[in-house]
Amino acid sequence: MMKIGLLGHGVVGSGVRRIIDEGRTEEVSGLSVKRILVKDQKEVSDERMTLSYADILEDEEIDTVCECMGGLEPAHTFVLDALNHGRNAVTSNKKMLATYLDELMSAAEENHVLLMYEASVGGGIPWISSLNEIRRVDEIESFRGILNGTTNYILSGMNEKDADFDEMLAEAQKLGYAERNPADDIDGMDVRYKTVLSCAAAFDAVLKPQDVPAYGVRYISKEDMAYAKEHGRVIKLIGEGAASGHAVHAFVMPQMLAQNDYFSMISSNINAVECTSSTLGTAGFTGQGAGSLPTAHAVVQDLLNLEDHRTMARRYLTARDVDNHDVCRVFYIRTAKPEVFTGIVDQKINEHVLLTKKVSLEEIDAILKQDETAFVCGVNE
Amino acid sequence: MMKIGLLGHGVVGSGVRRIIDEGRTEEVSGLSVKRILVKDQKEVSDERMTLSYADILEDEEIDTVCECMGGLEPAHTFVLDALNHGRNAVTSNKKMLATYLDELMSAAEENHVLLMYEASVGGGIPWISSLNEIRRVDEIESFRGILNGTTNYILSGMNEKDADFDEMLAEAQKLGYAERNPADDIDGMDVRYKTVLSCAAAFDAVLKPQDVPAYGVRYISKEDMAYAKEHGRVIKLIGEGAASGHAVHAFVMPQMLAQNDYFSMISSNINAVECTSSTLGTAGFTGQGAGSLPTAHAVVQDLLNLEDHRTMARRYLTARDVDNHDVCRVFYIRTAKPEVFTGIVDQKINEHVLLTKKVSLEEIDAILKQDETAFVCGVNE
Repeated sequence: MMKIGLLGHGVVGSGVRRIIDEGRTEEVSGLSVKRILVKDQKEVSDERMTLSYADILEDEEIDTVCECMGGLEPAHTFVLDALNHGRNAVTSNKKMLATYLDELMSAAEENHVLLMYEASVGGGIPWISSLNEIRRVDEIESFRGILNGTTNYILSGMNEKDADFDEMLAEAQKLGYAERNPADDIDGMDVRYKTVLSCAAAFDAVLKPQDVPAYGVRYISKEDMAYAKEHGRVIKLIGEGAASGHAVHAFVMPQMLAQNDYFSMISSNINAVECTSSTLGTAGFTGQGAGSLPTAHAVVQDLLNLEDHRTMARRYLTARDVDNHDVCRVFYIRTAKPEVFTGIVDQKINEHVLLTKKVSLEEIDAILKQDETAFVCGVNE
Repeated sequence: MMKIGLLGHGVVGSGVRRIIDEGRTEEVSGLSVKRILVKDQKEVSDERMTLSYADILEDEEIDTVCECMGGLEPAHTFVLDALNHGRNAVTSNKKMLATYLDELMSAAEENHVLLMYEASVGGGIPWISSLNEIRRVDEIESFRGILNGTTNYILSGMNEKDADFDEMLAEAQKLGYAERNPADDIDGMDVRYKTVLSCAAAFDAVLKPQDVPAYGVRYISKEDMAYAKEHGRVIKLIGEGAASGHAVHAFVMPQMLAQNDYFSMISSNINAVECTSSTLGTAGFTGQGAGSLPTAHAVVQDLLNLEDHRTMARRYLTARDVDNHDVCRVFYIRTAKPEVFTGIVDQKINEHVLLTKKVSLEEIDAILKQDETAFVCGVNE
């Protein structure tokens, strides 16, 4: 029987507790939540709840710590402490894990324990485990994904209802898909963390989040979506990664996809992700990218994999550089400073909108530093 | 080290041998093909090859038999013998397994061995294992899939190029996607086998293939595809199943899907399948539905799961009835005998084409027995 110390009892944590307490399958009955760390006396509604992490860390019966608190601290310190105390750990916290990936994976390695993170990328989609499974046979060559439900909800709504960005953002907030402060979602930071974690699972690469160029959808306008539609395309926010010798291609950017790309049909707050490897070819996965029970389901899958003592090849992660100098595209740009793009413009659509020549992502990334309110969108061939 | 007796060295079998012999990963290096059964002296190109199954069955070192021969016999007898001799077995042979499911699963159970069949449904897509994984936490409520690459290639081509059925079939045959005798593919039999096996993995149900209503695309015309397009729809051949008390809903039929259903965008010979369960919601999978290496990849994944001694809940399959009396739809029908449908017609599109009222699949199935050359297509809401 696995005894779990659950950190956090919010949206995800309460889902994990509920699935485990209900124990509807033989497998889940082998798990037990022994203690639950909550922030506040007001939250205490169960005798297993405590305000003190020491109660969990010092409990010798607890073999696994499951972090569903979110935020950088104290989540980071708590997970590090768990690993250093010889506990396996499971986390759903992409921001924390992407930020401290090297330190936490090293701690897991030194302590001969495992740190699992299925729920932190793509919510309920079995993405990290699928990468692990495929890698038993193949090397992963590349991946791409719609990894943020909030922006997908906004972009799908703009596309289907010709709505404004602000209108759709307000709707997403009303439905609980977007935070009051939506910056991490709409500026591409959330997808950047997930791209970093996908690169870890796919390529054993530790990337610094700040090295991964990330562009969001904050400055998209109705006209951009209309332009895409006129040209038989749909705009989606995509995180991508590919193995490239010692370096890794990795970036986050809106892309104009062909209408017959099935990613174009991934609507509402659904996520989709796919990877390519040599014998399997391209394998795709779609599903709930967030939400209490789907994300909790993914956490429980990690716990079951630990409980089953599955052979998970101990992969040693290595710091790797991000190198996008040979990822070349045409870019669609809406800008208040068209003069910044003079050297690479191929076609002026109007005073503020242009298509570039085919240039590298590295080059466009450097130029965009001079125009922080531009909307940039890759145009896929 | 797992020692494997490989039965068959055709498209799939040679792929399995190649992946294992190349042993590119640590995991695959733990597998070894010890003997290979071939049909004919002309095929012998390797000292491990034999024409006698006894050489495999009597080899005490061989712990796992991997059947990639295709066809009913002798594949069925060989797999049964392997199980009765205490060997685990892996098969990619959907027709054989769907036909002898009850007998073979019972033999596996009695002999305390496992019979795995990932490659037999959806080729490289990790569909059967995903159902198993999800079922560690949830019950599967329903599934649907584009499970035949040949017909998907034909239907996609008809949709994209306004081509005739015969034209696309000839093209599929030229590319090796369709057999010289394509009956199993175009009449829905191949999808029926895969639907039966998906019901086994999803619901522990043993269905008789002949109990599952199966309609194919042999009688589809260009005009049917044009009608769908005019109405914002795309025709796909779909296998579906759902848990329904003691019975199971299961059927195979062309369906007119909304253009914004991502299944509508699954083109060429790609497969897609999705399932719905309580905590995870709807989870979708896309990928190569056939082909030497993708299918062989799936076989190797089964072998690795056996080698890893993963806990696979021993699920006891039970014979179940197919009951489609409360699956109700509008049906689009092209018929040379419109009088057969008089009682259920809602709208005559022309002399030979009609839309029915909303009727049950059971009812339409009974009526269609009077008109074996009709093209029938469910119209999804």
